[in-house]
Amino acid sequence: MISFECDYNNGACQEVIDNLVRYNSSKPTPYGFDEFSERGKGRIREAIGMPDAQIFFLTGGTQANATTIDSMLYQYEGVISVGSGHINVHEAGAVEFTEHKIITIADTEGKMEAKVLDKYLDDYMHDGNKDHAVHPGLVYITFPTELGTIYTAKELDDLYQVCQQYEIPLYIDGARLGYGLMAEGNDITLPYLARHCDVFYIGGTKIGALCGEAVVFTNRKAHKHFFSIQKQHGAVIAKGALIGLQFDALFTNDLYFRLSEHAIKMAMQMKEIFRSKGYQFLVDSPTNQQFVIIDNAQVDKLSQKMLFTHFGQADKHHTICRFVTSWATTQDEINELKRLL
Amino acid sequence: MISFECDYNNGACQEVIDNLVRYNSSKPTPYGFDEFSERGKGRIREAIGMPDAQIFFLTGGTQANATTIDSMLYQYEGVISVGSGHINVHEAGAVEFTEHKIITIADTEGKMEAKVLDKYLDDYMHDGNKDHAVHPGLVYITFPTELGTIYTAKELDDLYQVCQQYEIPLYIDGARLGYGLMAEGNDITLPYLARHCDVFYIGGTKIGALCGEAVVFTNRKAHKHFFSIQKQHGAVIAKGALIGLQFDALFTNDLYFRLSEHAIKMAMQMKEIFRSKGYQFLVDSPTNQQFVIIDNAQVDKLSQKMLFTHFGQADKHHTICRFVTSWATTQDEINELKRLL
Amino acid sequence: MISFECDYNNGACQEVIDNLVRYNSSKPTPYGFDEFSERGKGRIREAIGMPDAQIFFLTGGTQANATTIDSMLYQYEGVISVGSGHINVHEAGAVEFTEHKIITIADTEGKMEAKVLDKYLDDYMHDGNKDHAVHPGLVYITFPTELGTIYTAKELDDLYQVCQQYEIPLYIDGARLGYGLMAEGNDITLPYLARHCDVFYIGGTKIGALCGEAVVFTNRKAHKHFFSIQKQHGAVIAKGALIGLQFDALFTNDLYFRLSEHAIKMAMQMKEIFRSKGYQFLVDSPTNQQFVIIDNAQVDKLSQKMLFTHFGQADKHHTICRFVTSWATTQDEINELKRLL
Amino acid sequence: MISFECDYNNGACQEVIDNLVRYNSSKPTPYGFDEFSERGKGRIREAIGMPDAQIFFLTGGTQANATTIDSMLYQYEGVISVGSGHINVHEAGAVEFTEHKIITIADTEGKMEAKVLDKYLDDYMHDGNKDHAVHPGLVYITFPTELGTIYTAKELDDLYQVCQQYEIPLYIDGARLGYGLMAEGNDITLPYLARHCDVFYIGGTKIGALCGEAVVFTNRKAHKHFFSIQKQHGAVIAKGALIGLQFDALFTNDLYFRLSEHAIKMAMQMKEIFRSKGYQFLVDSPTNQQFVIIDNAQVDKLSQKMLFTHFGQADKHHTICRFVTSWATTQDEINELKRLL
Repeated sequence: MISFECDYNNGACQEVIDNLVRYNSSKPTPYGFDEFSERGKGRIREAIGMPDAQIFFLTGGTQANATTIDSMLYQYEGVISVGSGHINVHEAGAVEFTEHKIITIADTEGKMEAKVLDKYLDDYMHDGNKDHAVHPGLVYITFPTELGTIYTAKELDDLYQVCQQYEIPLYIDGARLGYGLMAEGNDITLPYLARHCDVFYIGGTKIGALCGEAVVFTNRKAHKHFFSIQKQHGAVIAKGALIGLQFDALFTNDLYFRLSEHAIKMAMQMKEIFRSKGYQFLVDSPTNQQFVIIDNAQVDKLSQKMLFTHFGQADKHHTICRFVTSWATTQDEINELKRLL
Repeated sequence: MISFECDYNNGACQEVIDNLVRYNSSKPTPYGFDEFSERGKGRIREAIGMPDAQIFFLTGGTQANATTIDSMLYQYEGVISVGSGHINVHEAGAVEFTEHKIITIADTEGKMEAKVLDKYLDDYMHDGNKDHAVHPGLVYITFPTELGTIYTAKELDDLYQVCQQYEIPLYIDGARLGYGLMAEGNDITLPYLARHCDVFYIGGTKIGALCGEAVVFTNRKAHKHFFSIQKQHGAVIAKGALIGLQFDALFTNDLYFRLSEHAIKMAMQMKEIFRSKGYQFLVDSPTNQQFVIIDNAQVDKLSQKMLFTHFGQADKHHTICRFVTSWATTQDEINELKRLL
Repeated sequence: MISFECDYNNGACQEVIDNLVRYNSSKPTPYGFDEFSERGKGRIREAIGMPDAQIFFLTGGTQANATTIDSMLYQYEGVISVGSGHINVHEAGAVEFTEHKIITIADTEGKMEAKVLDKYLDDYMHDGNKDHAVHPGLVYITFPTELGTIYTAKELDDLYQVCQQYEIPLYIDGARLGYGLMAEGNDITLPYLARHCDVFYIGGTKIGALCGEAVVFTNRKAHKHFFSIQKQHGAVIAKGALIGLQFDALFTNDLYFRLSEHAIKMAMQMKEIFRSKGYQFLVDSPTNQQFVIIDNAQVDKLSQKMLFTHFGQADKHHTICRFVTSWATTQDEINELKRLL
Repeated sequence: MISFECDYNNGACQEVIDNLVRYNSSKPTPYGFDEFSERGKGRIREAIGMPDAQIFFLTGGTQANATTIDSMLYQYEGVISVGSGHINVHEAGAVEFTEHKIITIADTEGKMEAKVLDKYLDDYMHDGNKDHAVHPGLVYITFPTELGTIYTAKELDDLYQVCQQYEIPLYIDGARLGYGLMAEGNDITLPYLARHCDVFYIGGTKIGALCGEAVVFTNRKAHKHFFSIQKQHGAVIAKGALIGLQFDALFTNDLYFRLSEHAIKMAMQMKEIFRSKGYQFLVDSPTNQQFVIIDNAQVDKLSQKMLFTHFGQADKHHTICRFVTSWATTQDEINELKRLL
């Protein structure tokens, strides 16, 4: 049965496997202090145009978020996120597990608006009892968002200016970063994104890798004992080269971008198929996740033929269904979707 | 200058002091295993009509909340609260400090509605990814709410039925419990409240005591090692009788209710004074906290003459001001308020 | 029955009660920002000879330890203590609850030796894998120790020099500080102690107060958001003056020292009584705690007549029994002890 | 330069890579609910002779320890370990990060003795203040130990009987399990080990895998929400099959045991080489880690020629050096070692 359930029900791209085989015949230094990891970091630094960015490899998104956020906050501080932020809803409380509060503010189609953030911070600064509240110590957004939407360059700039005004760092969760960067109409480049935040992560798991995310500190402010914090979180693997080698492959010859572009191409075809059949969408997503509103009876029928996710109820009679493409989605699968609809 | 800033800028009522002097000439067993504490617990059990309720004394509200909530949750569970709940906004992240998430849902005038809770829990139960989310393990409400409003007997019953249906315990934060029970129009008695939740606390700090809250488990389900959890939280005082003796005094001859009733009487006079001068209110509060909407220029003038709290902005030109009475508010102070307005 | 079980099975001294009654007729600003607390802090600053020491009042020893230690450590750091340190054995894991490890090293009669600490830190610094270990971030000792012994001025100076050499702050738990300062043969004054550590606390609970400990930062390095950390720990009481007023009384006219001196006088009489009857001691304690080695059969008999604590087994046939005096111990009680032995 | 520094400075064995390539052309269900993981679990269940053992795959040892231990303890409980236990010294406080204390007791050549454990638990049970102490909730040992030693079947049985007597589960960290099972003189089989504990983990990282450990609950008492706890710890990877496929390969045709056996053969040759040259050992280790005591001048010379670890100081003039073999150590490397010595 064809599956549009998620973007991680597959293995790795061939170039990653090839590099893994290459690595496997070497004797790499443990804990990520090996040549593959160094080369992977070098390639990322080049891609973002920051020769001295600090880079750490972790195995997954929840781990990358919890470790990075924890490393950036004092014990009494919390992280600001929109309510629909991934850390707030789908990480089993991993941030709270590190004792930090997620302070939620309202979103607009999954995005945090500069003015909403500004209002929150302004109110906080004027609160006479602010010492009884959680201090905001970090702002968290995802690019693209949980709804598949993306920030414009202007929106990101506005947001980052608010962060800088209040001297609160900005962290961008890029679990699907490539799918955002290659999205239709996107006007943000990877170097632009890197210059408009203090730390972000480049998702590998959902784009070509077996596992692994690259956390990038853009301004040399990574915690000086980030490694120990990583270890304390159980987020260090002994054969660290395993992740480094994957980013080494993904950032060779723009592979990461080419893989992402393919997924977007498939997603836009999928979107057009649904649109042409008269389906409505929850939001207008230019990325690899499409949220289609489908009549409940039809949902049951489709479920017999393909895999997708029930994202929520649109109303009594309609379900919001999530259909996802990835770098591994084939043209045949899209054709089959068209046929089945 | 007269102050309506809060209900804890005073000492204790005379009966509490008298009992303290009595205690001071005794040799009480430490850690709350003394006769004063036992007598205090006995009087509370009598007042709520539950001879075998389990009762623990803690020093303050944030401590009582964090310790009780932590004792009731497994590590992967969170507590549901309205966004304006005290634990979510004014406790410096004390619940998250115990590694538990506060799952926020929308409120109506500070209250949690049974149908909103039901919708949340129903959605959660039907979420295919619920193992990736924080499991709801407890429902938290305050009586009265942060806005001074109170639940009706019917509303509380509805809410508790939802909790029971999903087998999730209900915890009522009663920092100002007496002021809710003695409120105008309230149809909930203390025994009724005790029968409609699994645990609640009776606030002493704001009603006649120097310090101290009594956490009451109504169904014999207190954690068997609650004492160790309390100790681990730094929430045990060596001379535990200090709190027990205060509840012993407060629950003798209905003192707790008489003190509360007085505060309500003062609050209703205050409310009438504002109303008669044409002021608007944020909500119609029947308790000791009144939220008055005042023109910014007038706020500045009033601030010269009396103490009150800026609760938030109503709009560009108006501030929501909080005026609070307590058991210690005098008729003279209310008269002075009238004169100054 | 007379009791030598502990030094907190009593109320407060009269001067504390008198000040409490005085406070009770005032309208103090909440959260410790009141005149009683300010006066209490002023008197402590004078007693230690440090006009700008930063002082915070907390309700009990475990709370003071956990909050202070947590405020001084980064998340990846731990605190060094001897294995018999109070935080390591009698605080129900309150330090670990804040996510910090207690790194234990060997003691000598309850005391930490400078050379043992130096050896540990030297090894740590030379450990090639030290990023995989907990970083030592604080040194914790008690004065007097859990065995009633005290450091000499020279020993404390040696220890503090090691701390300074490794740039690790020293924290002294003074739950029974007065009993150490007034001990026979003690050559440490309060100002000397304050100058030989970075933070310490003055115990009130066991010396004249109802509750309360004063945490003193000697070098202006208290965490700038200590209040928020305190709140997050549930360690703030609304009527903070309650503790401030007690230290105000205790540090007026050397009361704290006079109360302590009395306890020591009683303890030395008790020690002499045991010694003259031929009893052996676990250590030679010059403070208010005496650890007497008693034949098991005799222990049973004595238990019928007075209260004391079984501290541990000396050997198969003998028990280590702890006998404690306090500021509230009377000459009659000591006489009665003599009669009963 | 040849390296005996550790047992994880290599890739994976060929069978693991082959299975990875096989997996890579499939479309596996995410989060470990795939056929490779199921098959891997089935093979482990067969190998231990427990058809209904509950098995979870995690990425590394520290993560496996912290997640498993946290899942088995109530918040007020701690885990007992010898001071030299891996969790106590080389995991950057990952257990304390989950708020649990590690209660340390003395070891004998790295092993926990039944009588030492019994004494600790007996004392605890008779401690009148035990509610002020951390409750022991789990016993942790490693097999083989940090010093390379192994328990005899009798020693393990004795230890487990003490655990059962006090109703405290036993957890065995098997980061190098295979090297223990194939050790010279070992009389413990994998099924025997499984029957003499409540949970253990089979280390893959150090024996043939790229990453991954298999946590095995032997008595159906895994936490019912272990997956959520794993997620909360950041210990779930989206493509869970990555670990499952490795254990699938490792437990096919006794590969895990054959790889381990090879490492032991190499280690015993190494041991004999050192012994024949007159070197002393810290302990008599029958496993893949040899702790050789070497004159400091000689240490410097050897360091020019090969990689090994400085484990500690034996005395002023001698260092304890750790030499480690693994499944990937070659006969040529051992020959080279002989030549260089």
